[in-house]
Amino acid sequence: MMHKYAVIVAGGSGSRMGSATPKQFLMLNDKPLLYYTVKTFLEAFDDLQIILVLPEQYTDLGREIIDAYFDYSRIQITAGGETRFHSVKNGLQLVRQDSIVFVHDAVRCLISTNLIHRCYQNTLHSGSAVPVVRCKDSVRLLNEEGNDNEVLDRSKIVLVQTPQTFHSRILLPAFEIDYKERFTDEATVVETFGLKVSLVEGEENNIKITRPVDLLFAESLLNHSEYKLINQ
Amino acid sequence: MMHKYAVIVAGGSGSRMGSATPKQFLMLNDKPLLYYTVKTFLEAFDDLQIILVLPEQYTDLGREIIDAYFDYSRIQITAGGETRFHSVKNGLQLVRQDSIVFVHDAVRCLISTNLIHRCYQNTLHSGSAVPVVRCKDSVRLLNEEGNDNEVLDRSKIVLVQTPQTFHSRILLPAFEIDYKERFTDEATVVETFGLKVSLVEGEENNIKITRPVDLLFAESLLNHSEYKLINQ
Repeated sequence: MMHKYAVIVAGGSGSRMGSATPKQFLMLNDKPLLYYTVKTFLEAFDDLQIILVLPEQYTDLGREIIDAYFDYSRIQITAGGETRFHSVKNGLQLVRQDSIVFVHDAVRCLISTNLIHRCYQNTLHSGSAVPVVRCKDSVRLLNEEGNDNEVLDRSKIVLVQTPQTFHSRILLPAFEIDYKERFTDEATVVETFGLKVSLVEGEENNIKITRPVDLLFAESLLNHSEYKLINQ
Repeated sequence: MMHKYAVIVAGGSGSRMGSATPKQFLMLNDKPLLYYTVKTFLEAFDDLQIILVLPEQYTDLGREIIDAYFDYSRIQITAGGETRFHSVKNGLQLVRQDSIVFVHDAVRCLISTNLIHRCYQNTLHSGSAVPVVRCKDSVRLLNEEGNDNEVLDRSKIVLVQTPQTFHSRILLPAFEIDYKERFTDEATVVETFGLKVSLVEGEENNIKITRPVDLLFAESLLNHSEYKLINQ
């Protein structure tokens, strides 16, 4: 039997939101963003454990939120680090061997259980699952100096989401390597460690809530469950 | 004095919307999407003329919408072609020399007059203006076979929007070249013609309305004007 962990990472400062409250604690229909993210993971698997990684000064607030809404026996809280890599690495200290580990952005609170299940199945089969969606817009690549640019073939471009999901035998050793600036997500860590990652179909609605209009969009979506179904 | 034209292109079939009505005619707060797009361009400049390019079978419906809401002396309607290139080319038949020409997706109905003005000023100065926004997600490039992928440097990636704006002395001759499959927008036509395009800052809210949830987002935004201001 595989253990299942969701390392939910909330490291952002909330500066783009124009708010002193970190984004993951902002309210969405009277509940914190974080509530929706945690709830969906708990619902996805009865035996999944959550490891919530919060900035050190917010771990107490996080504990209050968790106690208010959830059975805390399934949820542990730990403090984040300097970068996303360090935060995830802290979370991974609590992961046991022989696990499937989902690493998810706390602010992607519109994720569905379907996507979590898809990532799980793919990871059982391939060792990893990185959800991606096609890009609706044309994409251009700027050159180093920023004074020139070229169009890329949009049909070859995908946008990366979370949960980036891995078997523990891949993720745990990968996070033992030294930090490098190019580690923007877990996939880049695993690739630097020397392994390929496997892509799966993500979800259009699985967006990062980083601006006030994103919060508005999320509210609309939660209040119109018929639209949410289209995503699943 | 420069003439100003907005070639507003509505070629889509609406298939992603799960609706028989083409997207540009879908209702948003009791008015067609197209209404908002046309209105913003008319408001941007008193002397701007609109050339609306519609699928041939919808030109009559388009005329009815225009007559219902606008002073039609500033708006001409013409039929689209097989591809976006052919549709825009049809619209350009109605453009006079010594013009600034905005080519805009009809379904980007959340555009602001600010962005239109920014594109205009940049085109006066540089001959073109292609609005782009930074990408919030990590970006990966699939290889030709689709069985491998590599991460791209997100700080070098931009997503392309419209209105793609050009001086007529660039755009009109560029559209005389033969159609090629890689013409996904006007910038790629102009580049194939042999000229560089100039990028300007786009707007996060200036999205393509292609799915039901996008329509929901647009409605929320229109009903919360305080959020719209953040975009401008």
